[in-house]
Amino acid sequence: MEYPSKLIEEAVNQVSKLPGIGKKTALRLVLSLIKDKEEKTFALTDALNKLREGIRFCSCCHNISDAEICTICASHRRDKSILCVVEDANDVMAIENTSQFNGVYHVLGGVISPVNGIGPSELKIESLVSRLNHAQTEIKELILALSPTLEGDTTAFYIHKRIKDLSVKVSVIARGVPVGGDLEYADEITLGRSITGRTLFN
Amino acid sequence: MEYPSKLIEEAVNQVSKLPGIGKKTALRLVLSLIKDKEEKTFALTDALNKLREGIRFCSCCHNISDAEICTICASHRRDKSILCVVEDANDVMAIENTSQFNGVYHVLGGVISPVNGIGPSELKIESLVSRLNHAQTEIKELILALSPTLEGDTTAFYIHKRIKDLSVKVSVIARGVPVGGDLEYADEITLGRSITGRTLFN
Repeated sequence: MEYPSKLIEEAVNQVSKLPGIGKKTALRLVLSLIKDKEEKTFALTDALNKLREGIRFCSCCHNISDAEICTICASHRRDKSILCVVEDANDVMAIENTSQFNGVYHVLGGVISPVNGIGPSELKIESLVSRLNHAQTEIKELILALSPTLEGDTTAFYIHKRIKDLSVKVSVIARGVPVGGDLEYADEITLGRSITGRTLFN
Repeated sequence: MEYPSKLIEEAVNQVSKLPGIGKKTALRLVLSLIKDKEEKTFALTDALNKLREGIRFCSCCHNISDAEICTICASHRRDKSILCVVEDANDVMAIENTSQFNGVYHVLGGVISPVNGIGPSELKIESLVSRLNHAQTEIKELILALSPTLEGDTTAFYIHKRIKDLSVKVSVIARGVPVGGDLEYADEITLGRSITGRTLFN
């Protein structure tokens, strides 16, 4: 497509670099910014610049944080003996939203994926091991809450291998049919897991 | 949802003000920016700021332009006697993409929509009338290429009323079944229009 202005073209190119946004959507967004007040664009770019300049990561769990230690790690109400290992900051938010977990987190920053050139050293796995060794409160349980994909499973196996000599219980989140889902539409692997991983009815 | 950082919250709020982007998508985009290099965010915000500061509109057709007069109005190859009236700059791009039109445009900047408080005075309709009256090359035909909606039709009627004393031929783009569409799935109004507006088979 030919754009009527170089400025539009450059803006569309930049916006379409965002995940899941193609050239058409980018153009729509860019044109909406032009139509709206100048202040709206400046508020947006200002928020993004401030975010990128000011964003920090918790030195303990590597979650996104405004301070040196994030609010979850700093809280006295959280059970420091249960550690939930997740891939990304959005997984922390998703689990927090369930209100079903009162422990603390460890954010790996990704999963092992040789295809994308991500090995164990790119992730916060060593930091996890040293956290398990040197935590002030003894960590009794490690919950692996990684995506049920090949990469997620590989990462889980790697972590398990690295810490198998430590006296910490390792668990993984349950895999089975989603609540509200129809058995008919569940794939056979998920359904198979839901049968082998069955729990007592109560 | 609770965000781990005020900076994230502010960025998500700003991004989710864009059309068609909700809080979840905004969060995904914002987190992708954090994960990526700093330069990517700065390139994006820089392009948007430059766009909003530098964007100009053609003083003749009101299309987006890098200069005082847009490339279409300035071109000697375009037929200045045919004027296509469109709602927005993206309509110009869409029509240009078809390569079926060699005239010039007039961008209204919207359509009459009392619900959204947009009356004729908010649009470039007076500018269109004075353009028809004072054009260097006589304008022989005015093509109304507005959306086939209530607002689009209202705008078309209003423009037609305003210029009915001028000796200019007024046409509207054809309405009918889309090419590649199935008759079965066309709504009755569209199908009805395609019958009343039938053309000779050749």
